Amino acid sequence: MTTSVHPTPILRIGTHPSEEVDLLAVEEPLEIRLGHGPWEDRQQHRLSVTMRTPGHDFELALGFLFAEDIIQTYDQVHSLRYCTQVQHPEERDNVVRVELAPSVVLDLARLQRHFYTSSSCGVCGKASIEALAVACPRPLPTDFSVAEEAIHRAPALLRRAQLVFEHTGGLHAAGLFDSAGTLLRWREDVGRHNALDKLIGSYVAENQQPLRTSFVLLSGRVSFELVQKAIRAGIPLVAAVGAPSSLAVALARQYGLTLLGFVRDQRFNVYTGEARVVLRETVA
Amino acid sequence: MTTSVHPTPILRIGTHPSEEVDLLAVEEPLEIRLGHGPWEDRQQHRLSVTMRTPGHDFELALGFLFAEDIIQTYDQVHSLRYCTQVQHPEERDNVVRVELAPSVVLDLARLQRHFYTSSSCGVCGKASIEALAVACPRPLPTDFSVAEEAIHRAPALLRRAQLVFEHTGGLHAAGLFDSAGTLLRWREDVGRHNALDKLIGSYVAENQQPLRTSFVLLSGRVSFELVQKAIRAGIPLVAAVGAPSSLAVALARQYGLTLLGFVRDQRFNVYTGEARVVLRETVA
Repeated sequence: MTTSVHPTPILRIGTHPSEEVDLLAVEEPLEIRLGHGPWEDRQQHRLSVTMRTPGHDFELALGFLFAEDIIQTYDQVHSLRYCTQVQHPEERDNVVRVELAPSVVLDLARLQRHFYTSSSCGVCGKASIEALAVACPRPLPTDFSVAEEAIHRAPALLRRAQLVFEHTGGLHAAGLFDSAGTLLRWREDVGRHNALDKLIGSYVAENQQPLRTSFVLLSGRVSFELVQKAIRAGIPLVAAVGAPSSLAVALARQYGLTLLGFVRDQRFNVYTGEARVVLRETVA
Repeated sequence: MTTSVHPTPILRIGTHPSEEVDLLAVEEPLEIRLGHGPWEDRQQHRLSVTMRTPGHDFELALGFLFAEDIIQTYDQVHSLRYCTQVQHPEERDNVVRVELAPSVVLDLARLQRHFYTSSSCGVCGKASIEALAVACPRPLPTDFSVAEEAIHRAPALLRRAQLVFEHTGGLHAAGLFDSAGTLLRWREDVGRHNALDKLIGSYVAENQQPLRTSFVLLSGRVSFELVQKAIRAGIPLVAAVGAPSSLAVALARQYGLTLLGFVRDQRFNVYTGEARVVLRETVA
């Protein structure tokens, strides 16, 4: 059984030093292997290794494969399971085998490229933005909107849900909210990309509903790659407690994604796509 | 000329909405290419692409090559320059060519593995910890210590130095301090790994002095990989404003690194190696 927190003895330094027990966010490697048919007699390909917090590993694998455009729908996956034939006991819960449907063609040269770009996002911003055009199935919905108040309420709802975060302070979170501001589901991880992959992956397993009629709140900053994942999943609005990067804003603008940053203390910044936010009062 | 901040028009939502200009942390891809001799007629290898904030790119390349154990000293590098023969104009300042000294043997199979593990840290925590033993040249110094007060002062010193951070809120920082708590040098980046690679890389270019007699302060959380980079560089103490992960603590313990977390508001937690911290009072 894997857990997402790990107790450890520490020395707490403050007014007076004291010996205490602290909860750490667990960080362990997850390897994703891909193949067709029964594992025992077929070739399998090591797709990637990512440092992640154990839990929702199958969702993480699904979300990653979906984000990388290796699968488009859940019915392209025949089975998901942990590898039991491992060299070291530590690997036991850290290797996920994805058996693809026979109809899914594994383009190894393309996988290599995927792998090549997985630690970043491509050769250059331009090339990546062009590459994304292929992986973005259809335009983002234009009829989605959310009231300003729902955005203001979202961080507290996510924090309350995030019990582990409260305990360790070490886990990023990604939460999906409907247009009324109700928190539908959330996922956590030491890696912010993994938290979003887990969240989206969980919906890939449910035919991607209701991603196109919801917004996502991220507990940290917004990189290019996080915007890329949201666009690919059809999520029309990304809100974040932290700041977006320049390339995140550029990509959001190009694809018509609404991007909000610094969502905290009853304030936020609208970087792109303000039409999807219903303000309490008009701009002076 | 590349810059680390980029102005963008935003809509600021608070008590009253207003149109303003915000500064974004720039995020652009950096590709590192490796080879021997003149570039025009020799083979070169694309080592990695990382999303980074432009600035100190040569230091980033050096720090990355050092962390990955591709180079051990600066004299193994013949030249560092931006690639001028690029396909797209956007790539102009985003490709760094590293010309290695003829004596440096490029083990392509090993590079492949390096590349393979660069988005994470290896097949499993155990394997990575074992792999690190090779890349760790000598034990961390045991005669380094720092007063509790110097640790308490460090975050404010780094923040004050970090002008860009004040403006964008989007950049991670890594700062090197001497044992008296004086900030010696700092580097910033949208990626926390890059900030540390830039910092260490800048000292690789100066024969790695004074890494073994200093401590580093990180503005965010501490992953396994950040601890790995510090150990490899011989830095005896890592302090961080955020939380460490379970694997970061395990690795620090194994290699005798002092690891401090949640360094803020005159408090911090000692996770490992308390002997290097001189406390104001003894533990009750």
